[in-house]
Order: sequence, then C-alpha cells, then structure tokens
Amino acid sequence: LRPSLQSLGTSVFTRLTQLANQHGAINLAQGFPDFDPPATLLDAADDAMRHQFNQYAPSPGLPALRTAIAEHSRRRYGVDYDPDTEVTVTVGATEGIWAAVTALISPGDEAIVVEPFYETYPAVVAAAGGVVRYVPTTFPDFRLDLDRLAAAFTSRTRLVFLNSPNNPGGALLTAEEFAAVAALADRYDAYLLCDETYEHLVYDAAAHLRASAVPGCRDRTMVVSSASKTFSVTGWRVGWVLAPPPLTDAVRRVHQFITFAAPTPLQQAVATALSTGADSGYFGALRAEYTERRDVLIDYLDRAGLPAARPAGAFFVMARCPDDDERWVTELIRGAGVAAIPGSAFYHDRSGGRDLVRFAFCKQLSTLHAAGARLMGKE
Amino acid sequence: LRPSLQSLGTSVFTRLTQLANQHGAINLAQGFPDFDPPATLLDAADDAMRHQFNQYAPSPGLPALRTAIAEHSRRRYGVDYDPDTEVTVTVGATEGIWAAVTALISPGDEAIVVEPFYETYPAVVAAAGGVVRYVPTTFPDFRLDLDRLAAAFTSRTRLVFLNSPNNPGGALLTAEEFAAVAALADRYDAYLLCDETYEHLVYDAAAHLRASAVPGCRDRTMVVSSASKTFSVTGWRVGWVLAPPPLTDAVRRVHQFITFAAPTPLQQAVATALSTGADSGYFGALRAEYTERRDVLIDYLDRAGLPAARPAGAFFVMARCPDDDERWVTELIRGAGVAAIPGSAFYHDRSGGRDLVRFAFCKQLSTLHAAGARLMGKE
Ligand SMILES: CSCCC(=O)C(=O)O
Ligand SMILES: CSCCC(=O)C(=O)O
Repeated sequence: LRPSLQSLGTSVFTRLTQLANQHGAINLAQGFPDFDPPATLLDAADDAMRHQFNQYAPSPGLPALRTAIAEHSRRRYGVDYDPDTEVTVTVGATEGIWAAVTALISPGDEAIVVEPFYETYPAVVAAAGGVVRYVPTTFPDFRLDLDRLAAAFTSRTRLVFLNSPNNPGGALLTAEEFAAVAALADRYDAYLLCDETYEHLVYDAAAHLRASAVPGCRDRTMVVSSASKTFSVTGWRVGWVLAPPPLTDAVRRVHQFITFAAPTPLQQAVATALSTGADSGYFGALRAEYTERRDVLIDYLDRAGLPAARPAGAFFVMARCPDDDERWVTELIRGAGVAAIPGSAFYHDRSGGRDLVRFAFCKQLSTLHAAGARLMGKE
Repeated sequence: LRPSLQSLGTSVFTRLTQLANQHGAINLAQGFPDFDPPATLLDAADDAMRHQFNQYAPSPGLPALRTAIAEHSRRRYGVDYDPDTEVTVTVGATEGIWAAVTALISPGDEAIVVEPFYETYPAVVAAAGGVVRYVPTTFPDFRLDLDRLAAAFTSRTRLVFLNSPNNPGGALLTAEEFAAVAALADRYDAYLLCDETYEHLVYDAAAHLRASAVPGCRDRTMVVSSASKTFSVTGWRVGWVLAPPPLTDAVRRVHQFITFAAPTPLQQAVATALSTGADSGYFGALRAEYTERRDVLIDYLDRAGLPAARPAGAFFVMARCPDDDERWVTELIRGAGVAAIPGSAFYHDRSGGRDLVRFAFCKQLSTLHAAGARLMGKE
C-alpha cells in the first residue's frame, strides 16, 4: 500500500453496521433507508433493462439523465447547467467527489474541510497526497465561523468542501455564508465542492439553497448530488457533478478511467423519476414523511434523556452523549440493541465529537418506534 | 487540472462511437454487444429490486456474489479464493484497475504495459503519477517477448499489466509466460495485474488459463474480471478483483472511498447468473455463438482484402490496414459506413499500430452481415 494511504482505515459506517448486525441491534448508524423506493422507479428500471439499456452509457452519462438533472436544477433552483458541457453522471456522489479531488489536488495541495464532516472528504484528499485543514463547528447549531474559515486558507488551498444540508450536523448554509466562501476562494484561486446529496430533505421553514445559485459562486463551484437519498436507492450508485465547462472537462477526464460510466438501466430509471418528481408531488411527500420521522426520533431521544439538536436538513440527529462516545455507543449496541455513530468519527480532532452521537432517521416509523422503546429501556 | 492529468485525452472508444453515430455507421469500434443479455439475468435483477436489494451493499460486495465468484474460480480453474478476504466487487473491471493502481503506485513508480494495450492501463498509471514502460508485441500473433519484458523491469517497477485473453490482439498467455513474469516480479518485488475480462471468450482448442492458477503466480497476482462481457451487460458495472489478503486489503481501502460499492440489485443478479452458468450450459453456448461471429467477420474481412489475424480469445479482430490507420478508419466510417478503431490507439509509440485496425464482433450476425456487405462495397 502506498504510504499516503496508510491512514485510510475501514469506513466507520462499515464498522458500525457490522457491529450492529453481530448484536442484532437496530441500525440507526449507517444512513440507508429500510423502506422501499417508489414502485414507479423500479418499474422504470425494469423497463429500461427490457429495452436495451444494458450496455455502456456514454461516459458523461445518458443524455436523458443529464437533461433531467439540468432541467431539475433550472426549475427548482433557477440555476442553468448545459447537459452537454456542465453535467456529469458518476457512480454515486462518492465517485463524483473522488473524481473532482483527483482532477484538482496535486500532492501537497490543501483542502479545507468543515467539522463535523462526512468521512469521505479527508480520506479522498489524503489519497491524492493532499493536506487537509479543518474548520470546526459545534453542537447544537453547527454554524460556520467565517473568521476561522478565512484563517484556514493559504496559498496552497485548492478546494473547500461544503455540505448543505449537512451530514451529520443538519445545518444549512446561508447565501451570505456561500458568498463569503466564494469570495475567499476567488482571492486564493480555490474551488468550492458542495455536496448537496440531501437537497430534498429540508424541514420546517427551511429551503435548500443550491450553492451555485448564490451570486459570485457559480464559476468556482462544483455541485455534487445523487439519487441515493432523494429516491431511497443508496445501492444504485447514480450521482452527478454540476460544474462550469472547464471543471466538468477535468472531472470527465478522470471519470472515464475511474469507472467509465454509471449503471445504464439505473441511470435511465432515475431520469424518469427526476423529471416526473416535481409534478407528481413526490418531493413534497418525501419531505413530509421525513419531517415526521425526525420528530418521532427526537421525541424518543428527549424521553431517553439524550439532548438532541433539531436538524434543519438531512436525515441525522446529533445528540449529547453522557459518556465517552465510543464506549457509550458500544454499550448502546450491546445493551440496548440500538446502533448509532460515535460523534468523534466526524471530527479530525476526535475530542471535538467525544460527547456526541449520531442517529439516522431514514427508517420506517415502526423501526423508529422499536428503537425508541429500546432507547428508553422499555424493551 | 493537475499537471499529471494533462495527458488524459478523451477515450478513443467515446471518440469513435460519436463519429460512428454522426455518420450512421455500423459500430464495430466500441466493444459492447448489440444483443440482449440472458432473460434470466434481467429477471434476477428485477426480482432483486423488488426484494430490498436497493440499498448500499457492503463495500467489498454482496456476500452472495463474492461466494459465487470464489466458487466459479474454484470449479472452473481450480483456484481457491476466500470470499471474505480475497474477493472484492468493484464498479466494473475499470474501477478494479483504478483501485489496484491507486493502492500500489506512488509518484515515480513504474508499471509495465504490453502493447497493444487497453487504453485504461497507461491512463490510470499516469493519473497516479507513475511512469509506464512499454513492451511491444506485433501482428499477427502478438506473442510476448520475454527478453524485452525482462529488460523493461527496473528497481522502481511495481506493477505488470497482463491481459489474457487480450484486447485487442486476441492472444492468450501460456503457463510458461505467466511463470516467467511472476519470477521477474518476484525478483523486483513487483505485482501482476491480470485483466481476465474475456475469460469466457476463447475459441477453437484454446482454454482460458487463470493467471493465479500458474505455480508461483498466486501470491503476487491480482486477477480482475467482470460480468460485462460474460453476460453481455457492459452497462451494469459489476466487476471484481481476486487477490491475496494483503493486496485485497489495499484494494478495499481505496475502493470504499472511490465508489463505496457496486450497484446492489445488479450484483445480486450477477450472483445468480454466475452460480447457475456452468450447469445451465450458458458458458458453452456463449463460446459457440462467439466462434460463429468471429468466423463470419473474418470471412468478410478476407473477402474485402483485409488480412486479419484469427484471435484465440476476446471479441476483436486485428487486421492489416492498407493506409494510415486514422485516415483509413475515418474514410471507412464516412465512405463505407462501418466504424472500427485505428490500431495506433493501442500503442504508445503510435507507429506500432499505424498499419492496423481493430474490428469488434460482439454483434448480432445480422449486424455483421450488414457490415460485411458494406466492407465489400456491396452496399
Ligand atoms: C456509504 S455508507 C455512509 C452512508 C451515509 O451517508 C452516512 O451514514 O453518513
Ligand atoms: C469502456 S469502452 C471500451 C469497450 C471495450 O472494452 C473496447 O472496445 O475495447
């Protein structure tokens, strides 16, 4: 193994799911739905397979899907992307992130990652031989401190990872925050990589803001998103990168040699779902269902004496943990039979998350009720 | 774009398929079947989607598929792999190759690539900052010259790419050749990456030899293969890497951050197809059909005055080209309406392939007859 990869351990999600399975615990650790995707999506995939969508897609993605993605961005956020030169379909948001970082980060280059973070960001920078500078945010609101962010920039900064709605913190970035980051990126000749995987999962009065919709952001921003969470198909591996032509060109050059293309029949199905989603009321229904799941979980955490932050977006709740997070989660899995993620997994300086724990609510209400009963020691 | 990626142009397969489509040419350029995969495979994928195989697979692959892959290797080639520690499911062979190279090649390390080669190999090494040393083989038999190979090794050699059956040359490596490469790898502390994507496509008296079946090879060999060609689903993106535990561990560490996992429902379907393939006679029928396709294409090339080599494996024919290959192929597409790949795309020193052209025969007989008529100027 190359020296720069020695630091890559086994994914915390893999580790906790294994532990959950070993102990028959309810898995509120790894973020995948335990309910079915919409039947129309499965019908569309079956139909695609029966109609010759089984061979290589064009490497940048099926034209129908790229058009649907561009159309969705235009209608929903008012941000135009040209399907031919600004949209690339990748194997989940994960490959999109890997491709963007591979295209942009040379050994010694720096990237800024906001804590708490999704574990992929620092790992991918390390794999490229880059150096990560961390900007912490804290429980319960996880607001970005722009002064600390500014202080993290150096002449070697190439990339700033943003994630809104945020996993695990649930925060949404504001237009002012995006604009401030873009201004810094402009000054240092860096780029924004905004992971918007949870774009349809926002609650209460919140609205998702596409990073590139903010004045001053579009030219330096790569937006990454995916079908995984919007359509409850985390195993389908269909994501995308939206970026101005020079950045798209860079992403595509590496994408063609990383995976060549995303799975064809599933791309075709997502194209159908994405173009009918707005009119069918699907996105609104999804949001309503997730709001209920969030509230149910928070209520149980409350009653179990675990003070939780109410997230504005995504499908995770961060709660205060009454003991060292690793020890407490291990005990929760063994004793109560509920799995969660120790908060320190989301911080580089692990002490930043030692008193936190993350619960996922992308689960059927019956699962949440069962987990709630266990959390309260009622079962 | 990072400096080391400047050399990555658009894939030759993308370029020629676009040109073919623009001119309404029959596409014998890019290697994808124009016929349907087995219906049982599509049924299995549909069934998987209807039974909750839509969320993240474990990053190393669904246990059922890893077991089927190991079982297939044992029954067919007598080579045992432990599904838990030696089999990793990737997003096509392409991601398997990217992951292996990312795990092993540091900037300045060297890799050996045999010409003619599949374009991914040198591109991926370049992306990792590595240096490629080329070992040419020539029309019509494309036999490996072991002295030239030995001369390409240096103290920085980390990886030797082998591809048997070979795309585009059609040659199969012998046990003696594998053993000689392994002995050199042993001496220089390098590894073999053997791409066996075309393992089921061998003709006449030939039998596919799994690299790791050869004495002395197993410990230093990573075997890469895929469902794409065996089951006529190049768009499904389900491949795998077989390697001893330390190499598997290295591949998995990067795989989890490149794509996390391959598409779940398609993995499940391939598991079914792979475990029933031997008993159902599927592999034998596939071979018989491809033998006929090969013979039909070669007959047309012959009658069109294009001297062709008869490949022992894979689904491509290399033929002598009566003019500069790029010019001739462009004219073939425009004039005759048949697309092929210029031979120089498979050589680093492009003069090595300037008098060659590659035709794919992974096509319905009716497609090959139509192309044949055009090649002979009869239409
Ligand atoms: C690829 S496993 C991670 C799933 C996820 O998004 C999360 O749990 O944070
Ligand atoms: C990923 S496109 C290349 C397809 C193929 O295997 C070939 O044509 O050689």
